[in-house]
Amino acid sequence: MALKTAKTPKIKIPKQFRSKSKLGKAPGAITYIGNRSKQDTYISVLKYNDTDYSKKVIGIQEVKSKSDTGFTSLVDVVGLTDEDAIAKIGGIYDLNNLLLEDLVDTLQRPKIDEYENYVFGVFKMLYLDGDEKLVVEHVALCLFQDTVLLFQENEDDVFGEVIKRIEKKFGRIRSRGADYLFFALLDAIVDHYFVVLEDIKEKLEVLEDEVYNDPQKESAKKIQYLKKEILRIRKWVFPVKELVNRLIHTEHHLISKETKLFFKDTFDHCLEINEDLVLYREMSTSLMEMYMTNMSNKMNEVMKVLTVMASIFIPLTFFAGIYGMNFEHMPELRWEYGYYYLWAAFILMALGLLIYFKKKDWL
Amino acid sequence: MALKTAKTPKIKIPKQFRSKSKLGKAPGAITYIGNRSKQDTYISVLKYNDTDYSKKVIGIQEVKSKSDTGFTSLVDVVGLTDEDAIAKIGGIYDLNNLLLEDLVDTLQRPKIDEYENYVFGVFKMLYLDGDEKLVVEHVALCLFQDTVLLFQENEDDVFGEVIKRIEKKFGRIRSRGADYLFFALLDAIVDHYFVVLEDIKEKLEVLEDEVYNDPQKESAKKIQYLKKEILRIRKWVFPVKELVNRLIHTEHHLISKETKLFFKDTFDHCLEINEDLVLYREMSTSLMEMYMTNMSNKMNEVMKVLTVMASIFIPLTFFAGIYGMNFEHMPELRWEYGYYYLWAAFILMALGLLIYFKKKDWL
Amino acid sequence: MALKTAKTPKIKIPKQFRSKSKLGKAPGAITYIGNRSKQDTYISVLKYNDTDYSKKVIGIQEVKSKSDTGFTSLVDVVGLTDEDAIAKIGGIYDLNNLLLEDLVDTLQRPKIDEYENYVFGVFKMLYLDGDEKLVVEHVALCLFQDTVLLFQENEDDVFGEVIKRIEKKFGRIRSRGADYLFFALLDAIVDHYFVVLEDIKEKLEVLEDEVYNDPQKESAKKIQYLKKEILRIRKWVFPVKELVNRLIHTEHHLISKETKLFFKDTFDHCLEINEDLVLYREMSTSLMEMYMTNMSNKMNEVMKVLTVMASIFIPLTFFAGIYGMNFEHMPELRWEYGYYYLWAAFILMALGLLIYFKKKDWL
Amino acid sequence: MALKTAKTPKIKIPKQFRSKSKLGKAPGAITYIGNRSKQDTYISVLKYNDTDYSKKVIGIQEVKSKSDTGFTSLVDVVGLTDEDAIAKIGGIYDLNNLLLEDLVDTLQRPKIDEYENYVFGVFKMLYLDGDEKLVVEHVALCLFQDTVLLFQENEDDVFGEVIKRIEKKFGRIRSRGADYLFFALLDAIVDHYFVVLEDIKEKLEVLEDEVYNDPQKESAKKIQYLKKEILRIRKWVFPVKELVNRLIHTEHHLISKETKLFFKDTFDHCLEINEDLVLYREMSTSLMEMYMTNMSNKMNEVMKVLTVMASIFIPLTFFAGIYGMNFEHMPELRWEYGYYYLWAAFILMALGLLIYFKKKDWL
Amino acid sequence: MALKTAKTPKIKIPKQFRSKSKLGKAPGAITYIGNRSKQDTYISVLKYNDTDYSKKVIGIQEVKSKSDTGFTSLVDVVGLTDEDAIAKIGGIYDLNNLLLEDLVDTLQRPKIDEYENYVFGVFKMLYLDGDEKLVVEHVALCLFQDTVLLFQENEDDVFGEVIKRIEKKFGRIRSRGADYLFFALLDAIVDHYFVVLEDIKEKLEVLEDEVYNDPQKESAKKIQYLKKEILRIRKWVFPVKELVNRLIHTEHHLISKETKLFFKDTFDHCLEINEDLVLYREMSTSLMEMYMTNMSNKMNEVMKVLTVMASIFIPLTFFAGIYGMNFEHMPELRWEYGYYYLWAAFILMALGLLIYFKKKDWL
Repeated sequence: MALKTAKTPKIKIPKQFRSKSKLGKAPGAITYIGNRSKQDTYISVLKYNDTDYSKKVIGIQEVKSKSDTGFTSLVDVVGLTDEDAIAKIGGIYDLNNLLLEDLVDTLQRPKIDEYENYVFGVFKMLYLDGDEKLVVEHVALCLFQDTVLLFQENEDDVFGEVIKRIEKKFGRIRSRGADYLFFALLDAIVDHYFVVLEDIKEKLEVLEDEVYNDPQKESAKKIQYLKKEILRIRKWVFPVKELVNRLIHTEHHLISKETKLFFKDTFDHCLEINEDLVLYREMSTSLMEMYMTNMSNKMNEVMKVLTVMASIFIPLTFFAGIYGMNFEHMPELRWEYGYYYLWAAFILMALGLLIYFKKKDWL
Repeated sequence: MALKTAKTPKIKIPKQFRSKSKLGKAPGAITYIGNRSKQDTYISVLKYNDTDYSKKVIGIQEVKSKSDTGFTSLVDVVGLTDEDAIAKIGGIYDLNNLLLEDLVDTLQRPKIDEYENYVFGVFKMLYLDGDEKLVVEHVALCLFQDTVLLFQENEDDVFGEVIKRIEKKFGRIRSRGADYLFFALLDAIVDHYFVVLEDIKEKLEVLEDEVYNDPQKESAKKIQYLKKEILRIRKWVFPVKELVNRLIHTEHHLISKETKLFFKDTFDHCLEINEDLVLYREMSTSLMEMYMTNMSNKMNEVMKVLTVMASIFIPLTFFAGIYGMNFEHMPELRWEYGYYYLWAAFILMALGLLIYFKKKDWL
Repeated sequence: MALKTAKTPKIKIPKQFRSKSKLGKAPGAITYIGNRSKQDTYISVLKYNDTDYSKKVIGIQEVKSKSDTGFTSLVDVVGLTDEDAIAKIGGIYDLNNLLLEDLVDTLQRPKIDEYENYVFGVFKMLYLDGDEKLVVEHVALCLFQDTVLLFQENEDDVFGEVIKRIEKKFGRIRSRGADYLFFALLDAIVDHYFVVLEDIKEKLEVLEDEVYNDPQKESAKKIQYLKKEILRIRKWVFPVKELVNRLIHTEHHLISKETKLFFKDTFDHCLEINEDLVLYREMSTSLMEMYMTNMSNKMNEVMKVLTVMASIFIPLTFFAGIYGMNFEHMPELRWEYGYYYLWAAFILMALGLLIYFKKKDWL
Repeated sequence: MALKTAKTPKIKIPKQFRSKSKLGKAPGAITYIGNRSKQDTYISVLKYNDTDYSKKVIGIQEVKSKSDTGFTSLVDVVGLTDEDAIAKIGGIYDLNNLLLEDLVDTLQRPKIDEYENYVFGVFKMLYLDGDEKLVVEHVALCLFQDTVLLFQENEDDVFGEVIKRIEKKFGRIRSRGADYLFFALLDAIVDHYFVVLEDIKEKLEVLEDEVYNDPQKESAKKIQYLKKEILRIRKWVFPVKELVNRLIHTEHHLISKETKLFFKDTFDHCLEINEDLVLYREMSTSLMEMYMTNMSNKMNEVMKVLTVMASIFIPLTFFAGIYGMNFEHMPELRWEYGYYYLWAAFILMALGLLIYFKKKDWL
Repeated sequence: MALKTAKTPKIKIPKQFRSKSKLGKAPGAITYIGNRSKQDTYISVLKYNDTDYSKKVIGIQEVKSKSDTGFTSLVDVVGLTDEDAIAKIGGIYDLNNLLLEDLVDTLQRPKIDEYENYVFGVFKMLYLDGDEKLVVEHVALCLFQDTVLLFQENEDDVFGEVIKRIEKKFGRIRSRGADYLFFALLDAIVDHYFVVLEDIKEKLEVLEDEVYNDPQKESAKKIQYLKKEILRIRKWVFPVKELVNRLIHTEHHLISKETKLFFKDTFDHCLEINEDLVLYREMSTSLMEMYMTNMSNKMNEVMKVLTVMASIFIPLTFFAGIYGMNFEHMPELRWEYGYYYLWAAFILMALGLLIYFKKKDWL
């Protein structure tokens, strides 16, 4: 049944490659999947309404399933490796076990699930670290009546600006409910995709400059690497568009009509991001093509030099060889001006070939 | 989780590349995003009905949200960099803040949003400047009961002809309402896409001529550059088709049935533009292929010359070398006609090889 | 915002390329767009019913908007360059100005619009002229109660057979109404697409033969040219499928249920044409691939000849050179059979290399 | 309007290529289109019910439109070139003329049309003849109340097994009606697609073996030929999927609910066939790629041999040339061991280069 | 009608390739199709409820169509080659013959069919055997009121963990019904797809490392082989997504609302698997491209060495040849320092060329 080849070369895989797998776990089992080392779970609560605002760090035992009346809360859980802590928090908020499983699986694809009492979403934050390297961080958002429960791997990066807007009372965030907060956090995630894409675009432009004007051997590697990065980003970013679209059309009671209007804006951004990803991929393909063309052009040039040199001097060498022969009867050797005649012939021959190559546009 | 390569080459990005980003702004914050330098906002009002027509430049404080009774107004706001002015005008017309945000974001993807009292659209004008260089200008159109509010970056280019039709009372524009004016402006934008596409087509034809008949080293660059330009244009033009389609089927009270009929025509144009873009892209791919084929053909020719020259003279040189040896016992050297016999052999060998290469069609 | 490259090569476009553009015309303005020179408009009327048949050439002033009772009329207007004549005829039949605009725009994409009193369609006739060159002719069909109004650029080509069927009373055309006539004309257009496609297929087969058995330098050009022709044809032919499909499902009172059945057949033909176009395009891509492979094969052969010649004679020349040296102390030169030993060595070396190359399958 | 190239090479088409065309025929005209020579039409009737079974050859005048009560009939018409016979049979069964047109057009795309009293389908039988060459046979099936009317070009091939099942009373075919017979025949056609695809797969595997282990110059041709065969098969097989799907969901009174269940199975087969065709095409593309890679690898090897040989012996020859010069003052020539020193230098140089090339992995 | 080529090379297929075909069998005939040798059918029954659990091996005659009241049963049939045994079991459970046909056809595409009393599904298990080779195993699942009937080719591999969860009472499997068991088995199949994909990913990474840093001649073969494996996996895995989606939206009474929630999770996994397959294919294409680029780079390097060596020494050899000539009148030969002057010229020439090549960046 399988398509067979005579000898299929075997690829040896070093054993340490194998990552933890989901295998053999009951669905709903809460197991951290990812490559961060064990870390403590750190919880902070941000409580605000139109007039008041407070922030404090709490222990797991202090987590409450409801916000104080008249307040909107952001419960920010940092660190997903401690499965017990996650399970406890999940218990307090009465979250479905399947969700908790997705929450601690950092390989989980972006998704949104709507339940009767809450809306649960898993996303990827993308941002550049200090070394301009792309970081992919797993994040989960859970919207309740007056609370947004936020799970993330690292302390705030992408959400810093949202927190600041709450603190400084910028914009309308303080006067709106938890669904707006949910939107603001998701919007911050999507806005950061633009920063990452801009970085890709800049790298493409630098590479384009390099390839068009001074292609290096390394250029191909760089292009391919960029292409792979684009593929990776698409993997995390592509599904978000559809998810946001679902939020726009949801009938869920926790998401107000005004907030849906804001999601439309986020949807526009998602559309643009996806179009840009397609565009950048096509540009990287074009770059690779250009690189190959450049390589061929260079090869052509090398070959022309070889051909010109060899075509001029090989015949001349032959004629020099003729008169280096030791025949007893070679009349030319005895001509008084033979040597000079020959030089004249050499120069004429060389000139003739040069003119021929010039005509062919090889010089 | 990330796909790892042994050594990923790092691309250095010059710092000045970073453009302003949308990051950390509250949604709805009005921040100009683009690369024009600060400029004053300049407002002019065009007021007309079937019989009367007037045009004047006004200050922001003179902007009124309603047109005079019996008149249709075109309020033309030029210059998007002055955020305060935009905010003020937005306030007068009671525009949603999210719209104003899109309006001053020149990177915003084309879109149309329908609100209860107005229809708001963001588009890209494409036109060629004096140097035949493609210019992309951000433009926003807002349709009210009897007014069209137009925001643009530069003073009239694309809309000049529409204004003239109003002035000179060409066609039916004077006798129809604001929705027809909205249509006429959008139609002018789309009509200009054809001009840009025609320019692309012409460039393709010139390049095709060049590549087919006299390919240059620069040709590849030119093709790739054209391809990238096609990708860019597609980015701005592609979404318009869907937007116009929505206008055809809208139930919005501000757009009359007769005007929808006109949008059908615009939709046809959008279809054609998109098909042409696909066609031109495929043509540019074909051109690149042809260029590569030409390069290979040239390389082949170079190699043939080298091979013919080397294959003929290298063996001859060897035989000349033989009789240049200094062995004491080399009977041929003493033959009376040895030298002439050798020449005969040389000529025969060369002829034989020439005939062989001729047969192989290498000459 | 724009993607920038260091130096973008400028493509010079000769000025005479610019064709007339639609720019700055009010929508509905009747302006001929195309590249035919001014010609007179020529009108003929074909009137028939089950028993009677007549044909006459008339002047514009004789055109009537209704056919005689009991008769079906085909009003055939040849020549689209005289805008006034078109406008007059349009006035007589009370045609929408937007339609007249499309009618005289030979770049207009195929389309069908249904109005209350008529169905209007714009198509492209494709046929091969006397020199087997592809001709694209703009044609418009307008179906009324008992009349079909036909606009075309040239006198009958594609429609000749339909006229003959009416004259000779072949088939059922005489006993059916105007909608059947409308169908018959459209069907004739689509049937001619097959002829053009067959021509493409034949050219592909001839080229395939050439590329597989005796590839020429010109072959690549021919393939690319054919590919471009396929792209062009697709542009005109592709939209027709969807249009015919709409006719099958139309509710328009002028098109009877029986005639819709016939359109199903035309739809099948459209499907097949589109599939064939895809097939031919893929075949032309395969051909190009094959051509490139052939080129590489040839290059390989050239290189092998060079390598074999050079690898055999360059070392031999070296050894001949050795014994051409003038050292005073070179014992071999004094050996009585030195020269013969060397020849033996030469022959052995050459044979060894020949066997080596034979093994590598280079000979 | 047309995209112009400076000089478009003309492809000469030998006149005998032109096949009969559909041109200028009234729709519904019954004209055989295909490349079989005129043959007699041969009719056989197979009549069966649960207990009885008979088969006889009849003349056209004996064809009856109804089966005997209690019996299911298979009327098998072999030979489509005799248009009169087809027309007569069509008349007896009161078939629409458009159907008869499709029936004798062997280029007709697969299709199914449902009429009030019958269901009509046109398909392609694909099978391998004695020489393992692909045969494409045009076949039409027409389902009536108690009869299946079968038109085919050749005598039974694909349907032999169905007839045998009826004869031998295998399975349930004898106890079910005409719709099951219709299904059984269509199923036999689809089942044979698998045989053809299996043949393609085997050829691909043989070719893969060849290309991976011992690529020949002919291999590319074979791959391209297979690719074209896959394209051709797809053309005939692809539409069947949609047709069968329509049969599953049809409301036609002649097709019972139980039989629709069987069509589901056929639909599954169609899905698989289409997926396999896609797979095989991708495999043939991969093969071509692999072939090109192999060619490049070989070229590389050739070039390396040339470079190694030339790089070692050209410098040595130069040095031998030096000491072949006839200057009067060349002290080395007088050294007692000059000749031996030089040989040592030769060997060192050659070794050095060999080590260098070895390091570069060229040997 | 067929597209003809002058001489189509014939591919010889060794006869033993032909596998058993489905040809000529009545639909519903139960015939094993696959490449396993005849084996006995082995049946075990696992019976459990919240409190009790038992497992035993039984003979065919002991198979009962109903589970004991209050228990959920897993009837595991291993071995599909014994068609009689399969038929008998099918009889006991009253399974449709068409299903039994699919069940013993190991080439059957994944599918799910819903019947009144049961839900039947056919899938492919993919797993790596001891040698890390991919195994494709055909498996059928049949869900009844309180029983899941499982058919497979080999004894447990993929399902081992599910059995263990039942035995050890892990998770909720013991307290839920047959539909949850059905889900758990299907989920185990899908989870194993991840393991296979992870293996592909690791191989890609190892190959990437190889191709980027030390490309081998074998690398291309390995990449193509991996690509083909990806194509094969896609064939089996791709249809599952749609099937699971259907289970989520099914109205079938045997599948409870809670279980559908679990299928959503499986659906997410399917989505991810399909996206990964696309990603891996694109990565393998990129790898192949990179490999080709590397080959071209190497070729370039080889050519440069040849060109540099030849361009330097061929002219020098010519000049050495000049002074090896035996003309009687060659004044330079008599110069006292002629030989040294010439060496100076040689060194200058060589240096000049080296500087030239250095400038061209060829060294």
